[in-house]
Amino acid sequence: MQLEKYKIDAHNNDLLSAHQRKLAFISSEIENSEAIIQKLVNFQIAIPSWALGTGGTRFGRFSGGGEPRSLEEKIEDVGLLHALNNSSGAISLHIPWDIPQNPQAIKVLAAQHGLRFDAVNSNTFQDQPGQEKTYKFGSLQNVNRDIRKQAIEHNIEVIKHGIELGSDSLTIWLSDGSCFPGQLNFRKAYQNTLESLEEIYAAIPDNWKLFLEYKAFEPNFYSTTVGDWGQSYSYVKKLGDKAFTLVDLGHHLPNANIEQIVALLLMEGKLGGFHFNDSKYGDDDLTAGAIKPYQLFLIFNELVDGMDARGMDHTKDLGWMIDASHNVKDPLEDLLQSVEAIMMSYAQALSVDRIALNKAQDENDVVAAQEILQNAFRTDVRPLVAEARLRAGAALNPVALYRNLKVRENLINERGAKAVSTGL
Amino acid sequence: MQLEKYKIDAHNNDLLSAHQRKLAFISSEIENSEAIIQKLVNFQIAIPSWALGTGGTRFGRFSGGGEPRSLEEKIEDVGLLHALNNSSGAISLHIPWDIPQNPQAIKVLAAQHGLRFDAVNSNTFQDQPGQEKTYKFGSLQNVNRDIRKQAIEHNIEVIKHGIELGSDSLTIWLSDGSCFPGQLNFRKAYQNTLESLEEIYAAIPDNWKLFLEYKAFEPNFYSTTVGDWGQSYSYVKKLGDKAFTLVDLGHHLPNANIEQIVALLLMEGKLGGFHFNDSKYGDDDLTAGAIKPYQLFLIFNELVDGMDARGMDHTKDLGWMIDASHNVKDPLEDLLQSVEAIMMSYAQALSVDRIALNKAQDENDVVAAQEILQNAFRTDVRPLVAEARLRAGAALNPVALYRNLKVRENLINERGAKAVSTGL
Amino acid sequence: MQLEKYKIDAHNNDLLSAHQRKLAFISSEIENSEAIIQKLVNFQIAIPSWALGTGGTRFGRFSGGGEPRSLEEKIEDVGLLHALNNSSGAISLHIPWDIPQNPQAIKVLAAQHGLRFDAVNSNTFQDQPGQEKTYKFGSLQNVNRDIRKQAIEHNIEVIKHGIELGSDSLTIWLSDGSCFPGQLNFRKAYQNTLESLEEIYAAIPDNWKLFLEYKAFEPNFYSTTVGDWGQSYSYVKKLGDKAFTLVDLGHHLPNANIEQIVALLLMEGKLGGFHFNDSKYGDDDLTAGAIKPYQLFLIFNELVDGMDARGMDHTKDLGWMIDASHNVKDPLEDLLQSVEAIMMSYAQALSVDRIALNKAQDENDVVAAQEILQNAFRTDVRPLVAEARLRAGAALNPVALYRNLKVRENLINERGAKAVSTGL
Amino acid sequence: MQLEKYKIDAHNNDLLSAHQRKLAFISSEIENSEAIIQKLVNFQIAIPSWALGTGGTRFGRFSGGGEPRSLEEKIEDVGLLHALNNSSGAISLHIPWDIPQNPQAIKVLAAQHGLRFDAVNSNTFQDQPGQEKTYKFGSLQNVNRDIRKQAIEHNIEVIKHGIELGSDSLTIWLSDGSCFPGQLNFRKAYQNTLESLEEIYAAIPDNWKLFLEYKAFEPNFYSTTVGDWGQSYSYVKKLGDKAFTLVDLGHHLPNANIEQIVALLLMEGKLGGFHFNDSKYGDDDLTAGAIKPYQLFLIFNELVDGMDARGMDHTKDLGWMIDASHNVKDPLEDLLQSVEAIMMSYAQALSVDRIALNKAQDENDVVAAQEILQNAFRTDVRPLVAEARLRAGAALNPVALYRNLKVRENLINERGAKAVSTGL
Repeated sequence: MQLEKYKIDAHNNDLLSAHQRKLAFISSEIENSEAIIQKLVNFQIAIPSWALGTGGTRFGRFSGGGEPRSLEEKIEDVGLLHALNNSSGAISLHIPWDIPQNPQAIKVLAAQHGLRFDAVNSNTFQDQPGQEKTYKFGSLQNVNRDIRKQAIEHNIEVIKHGIELGSDSLTIWLSDGSCFPGQLNFRKAYQNTLESLEEIYAAIPDNWKLFLEYKAFEPNFYSTTVGDWGQSYSYVKKLGDKAFTLVDLGHHLPNANIEQIVALLLMEGKLGGFHFNDSKYGDDDLTAGAIKPYQLFLIFNELVDGMDARGMDHTKDLGWMIDASHNVKDPLEDLLQSVEAIMMSYAQALSVDRIALNKAQDENDVVAAQEILQNAFRTDVRPLVAEARLRAGAALNPVALYRNLKVRENLINERGAKAVSTGL
Repeated sequence: MQLEKYKIDAHNNDLLSAHQRKLAFISSEIENSEAIIQKLVNFQIAIPSWALGTGGTRFGRFSGGGEPRSLEEKIEDVGLLHALNNSSGAISLHIPWDIPQNPQAIKVLAAQHGLRFDAVNSNTFQDQPGQEKTYKFGSLQNVNRDIRKQAIEHNIEVIKHGIELGSDSLTIWLSDGSCFPGQLNFRKAYQNTLESLEEIYAAIPDNWKLFLEYKAFEPNFYSTTVGDWGQSYSYVKKLGDKAFTLVDLGHHLPNANIEQIVALLLMEGKLGGFHFNDSKYGDDDLTAGAIKPYQLFLIFNELVDGMDARGMDHTKDLGWMIDASHNVKDPLEDLLQSVEAIMMSYAQALSVDRIALNKAQDENDVVAAQEILQNAFRTDVRPLVAEARLRAGAALNPVALYRNLKVRENLINERGAKAVSTGL
Repeated sequence: MQLEKYKIDAHNNDLLSAHQRKLAFISSEIENSEAIIQKLVNFQIAIPSWALGTGGTRFGRFSGGGEPRSLEEKIEDVGLLHALNNSSGAISLHIPWDIPQNPQAIKVLAAQHGLRFDAVNSNTFQDQPGQEKTYKFGSLQNVNRDIRKQAIEHNIEVIKHGIELGSDSLTIWLSDGSCFPGQLNFRKAYQNTLESLEEIYAAIPDNWKLFLEYKAFEPNFYSTTVGDWGQSYSYVKKLGDKAFTLVDLGHHLPNANIEQIVALLLMEGKLGGFHFNDSKYGDDDLTAGAIKPYQLFLIFNELVDGMDARGMDHTKDLGWMIDASHNVKDPLEDLLQSVEAIMMSYAQALSVDRIALNKAQDENDVVAAQEILQNAFRTDVRPLVAEARLRAGAALNPVALYRNLKVRENLINERGAKAVSTGL
Repeated sequence: MQLEKYKIDAHNNDLLSAHQRKLAFISSEIENSEAIIQKLVNFQIAIPSWALGTGGTRFGRFSGGGEPRSLEEKIEDVGLLHALNNSSGAISLHIPWDIPQNPQAIKVLAAQHGLRFDAVNSNTFQDQPGQEKTYKFGSLQNVNRDIRKQAIEHNIEVIKHGIELGSDSLTIWLSDGSCFPGQLNFRKAYQNTLESLEEIYAAIPDNWKLFLEYKAFEPNFYSTTVGDWGQSYSYVKKLGDKAFTLVDLGHHLPNANIEQIVALLLMEGKLGGFHFNDSKYGDDDLTAGAIKPYQLFLIFNELVDGMDARGMDHTKDLGWMIDASHNVKDPLEDLLQSVEAIMMSYAQALSVDRIALNKAQDENDVVAAQEILQNAFRTDVRPLVAEARLRAGAALNPVALYRNLKVRENLINERGAKAVSTGL
């Protein structure tokens, strides 16, 4: 399905005067609104290929329809999102499901949609048909050297696919761990994993990054071998300068202070990027900002502050990606909502009066510090986010336009009501 | 310290034109803004007498100064808050610390400040000097009939003090429980507690309510005898029509869905009231809205919806009280921030488009339902809350005025830098 | 595969003298050891049909082989377990997967293995092929009356299958809930669910029980419509005398005191039964006793105490069932380990010196109460459990015999290495 | 109060034949029982001076009586414990409360009781009378250089006291952190803390160790500046070879896998020692082994395995200390119970069949690995622990002898019913 420019323009025209009124108001409230809008225009959040279909749980999956049946259709879907919001200009692939048959053609197709290839993702959390050895008891951690070798080679293959497409990073989320006390020797599991990572790291091109994600639990329910930020940090410190920790918001124990973790990893020069989502109980993979929007803002507050302190480029020096599942929502609508929530949090973080905040902190004026942060959070920055879209040729209200254009109905017509996305 | 009306007026005059601009904008955004303002004017949140001093933890307490040294000074402090925000028109007393020597004079003093007496609170979580029997192993649950009797009589005495002052409810927070497996027979503890509550209930006047608070843990660290909403509900169902459950936001296990609990208690006709605060880890007693402002909004969303469904009066049919501690903030500033956060959440809940929400729910349109709630939450309603204060003769920016008038410095001058509030 | 009696006897003969030595020692340590053995002989724990195959997570499933391909083979598997331990004399079926084509033949087969039919389980947490309406947005709670009706009829059909087989209870685990704030009106969801349950309850025979299970989260990640014991209790109180709450150990928020919940439900006459498993993080469905064996003992301590206080029959008046998944273990070995852990906890609870415990509680002697409980827990009661098996003709060491006889290899030979169990 | 040797002997004589019967049985069950007994004889757990009095919560404290009123009496209390169990041969002091007036005399007194001085503990979590600057907003992290300096100097003074007494380690538990978002700049707080620690580290003698404890929350309720093992690890790595992480069991987020943390810190050569206690909800400071005894065993399983892998001396190369509070128990009885639970876990860990466990791990035989660990845990090793006491001249049943000798009554007679221990 193609989203013609004139349809976006028509949509924007209808909403324009209301938008301009709101924009005028908020611009009078926020001093640096123009600079914020510019940064919002440039900010891009990658969409993972596996998020384009209906998610599920171990108890079942209630597919919608019109899901992408191929890598080409996945790119088309992300292209649609990017046309609607101009903030989703990258796609993150999942190997083996997304192995391109014709990389050159895929690159051309992506370029047509204005998309680049974000981090490539290896997968050893399940066995593929025809796979020689099983990952039932782990991959990079496995007590069996041959299984580790198979997993290492898979990762190296993923890097190669990434190179072909122009990606420049590899994300390793390792589901390895154990379900019962005694199953693993923790030290050996760590050492095996470290050795495996070192072999993968050796295959990482010089201009690439290796992101090592951590997760507290699931699918293993007693221990995870890269289980928290401290463990990921201890691996990436040993690996070298191209290795970084990746933070997924849903991968923590209850009540963890994620914004502090983010600040410290940034300080250490070891924060690599983000998987955005939201959660109430565990790795619920809900829409970003749907449950704890203030936490999302506080994280961005640390990101902006920490990146600026290190002179980092907001758009390039960290990896930004959504990693959510969509059990009860249309996946594309869900992704539009996630991107919107992330952009809002970013805009709010950019609007924080940092001079005043530093002063309050230096004076231990806790009340004032809270007022400053909450003022940024309570201020309605949605018109700034909308204006950034408008300037970039995208839609003032992406979800509304998506619905007006009956995108899902069109996709179902094209692809069928039973089309179920591959991967996950 | 007296807060003269002309000082408030001067403060408001300075901020008026900026306020009016913001109000005009938000009034054009929210259809029922006028009705919301009216409800905000009427809405009052009680201040507990123990929240007027610096709080502490078992590791120590860092007192500020100028804390109230007597019931009279506590009333004066709440009067100051009420003068500043016109939303704190009630005080909730803690017996034995706040026993009035001259109830009539106290009533006159409170009336001068425009305050009424909210729920009275009994206390059996510590022993008082001269107390005959110890509550070390519980009070209403105690295996010893004489100790239960002492605790029952204390509660009845609290009711009497409340009657004298014109209060109309008793809040029982029972710290009873156990620290180790085997310490208690759970059934006997329940039965003893039920019998004790029945005796207290018998002393409750017909126009009164008994609020039974629950708490998951602390100060007991293995079990609590009124430990969750289900337990409180099972007691108040047995007690009768004047008994209700009271919800304190910090008294839950990690990740609990408090808004659902609130909705169901309201549905059952057994929600009595609220203790507002916020928390990240446990009963942290932080400023309301300081950690999870969206949760506070979702709770108010259920409150407004549920009260309206039962035709309840927002201002009278539930008890609203703050229950926070202030370890690192000026207590009065903290309370102003809590009240502000509560008023915002209430205003946002009032602005929810309920017809559209019901429609979305009836159609399982999860995306739309989220958009509707988040739209209410993202909209900046602070000008409505400020306008409500303005109309009621209070300050547009209470914290700023409090600081400009150097209230704390004045209180320290009056009461001394070492004045430490009684109770907790 | 058949487990001939002589093989068990040979196994037991090899271990007999060592066993007798241990039994003699422990019998000299525990006063009522003979009575405990007798109770252990009689105690039976039902095996759910879905636990006979390798479990999985949303990230994948690593099947073993030789899994049962039909209801007949499931009965055969449970028969094997029961032959090995004589404590698994019941099977719990999952409809629609286990609908018997020829109920009479199935009853005969079960009887040959010494098995009875425990609670039948309805399932509305996923859609079945050919199902008319979807449960994507819930079943008994659904806003759509026709969907509720379909789910009600499914439950009534399950009851009918149960009647045919001689079952006498229905377990309803309702996955209904919501993933996002605003998705549900909590009150309407409750009311719809209650009405649906009332219709199902009306179809429950007089000698049957309805068990209503609760769960904090998963597969819904914002709210669950029967989310905690308090909610289940409020439903079953309204339904009537045949309705009871069912407790699954993994269905609680972090740190919940499950033994207190059990004690109170028993006290209220509303505890129906148990789903045993263990967990560290959520509904991990690990082997019973694998993570928190002391908690399992404390729960049995309340069960024994509470059932005896009400004159209940340990073997019949509550439903006992395992509900675990087996991602990295042979399912049958895992079930043998779970049963062993449950029997140990039951034996330990039976050995508690209740007179001394009551005395310690009456005197608030917390140290002594802990000593009494821990003494029962620290005492090695495994010889009592083994003796109960020996007397009943089962194996002294079921796991060892299972391995010696190469049961899994035999099942793979019979059923194939790719045989994957139906259901879940 | 003096505990004469003949009283212990008389007590042991009464219990001897029963003990010998049990010991004979268990010695026939555990191959290396003699070696285990020897290790138990040598194993010593330090008692902190603050654990000798009744603990409390922020809601109050219910003191017993006869608590030690001076450092001398604290030493006497630990001496009593050590006489009873011969496993508490060290005391850990808390400065400023335990500053010795006459160090030489104190050393003599301790030696008379067979006690050495374990780690000394600094304290900046509350202000002392006469203290110049306040720690309200932190100590080593403080934005104010003078406050940091004061806290550094306090730590250096603590080291000096430790040197005088023959201690060889400093434990820093830093309560520094924040209660509200925005209060701290996380990076600056980290950098200030690191600088402060470097200054303290410079004062650490060459044969000493610096232990840096971490804690997730309390008394700060938003962030803690040494908040988890990863943060402590990142500090001690920067500090140098004499700096180590100290693990307190109650200082973790819900569901944390502490045994994995311990294993990894040991592997990294950065585990310094332990604070033993138990908890259900937070830093509950309950008796070790009272809530999760299997977790305690699993931790010791990693300790024994990891120390042996590095050729470490169990008795000297890690710091072992209890850190519990006793709100409802006699403190001395509570400590006896804690020591007993720790000794049991240590004995069980020593009895694990490591060759079989390694084999099971190498074969991914999860069922066997669980059987091996649970066999060690289910085996009743109490006679080994008792035998170790017997051989060392201590009591077979310390709690029973403590009660028979009416130690508490004697202490109350000596010190008074109102004697309340200093510190915490």
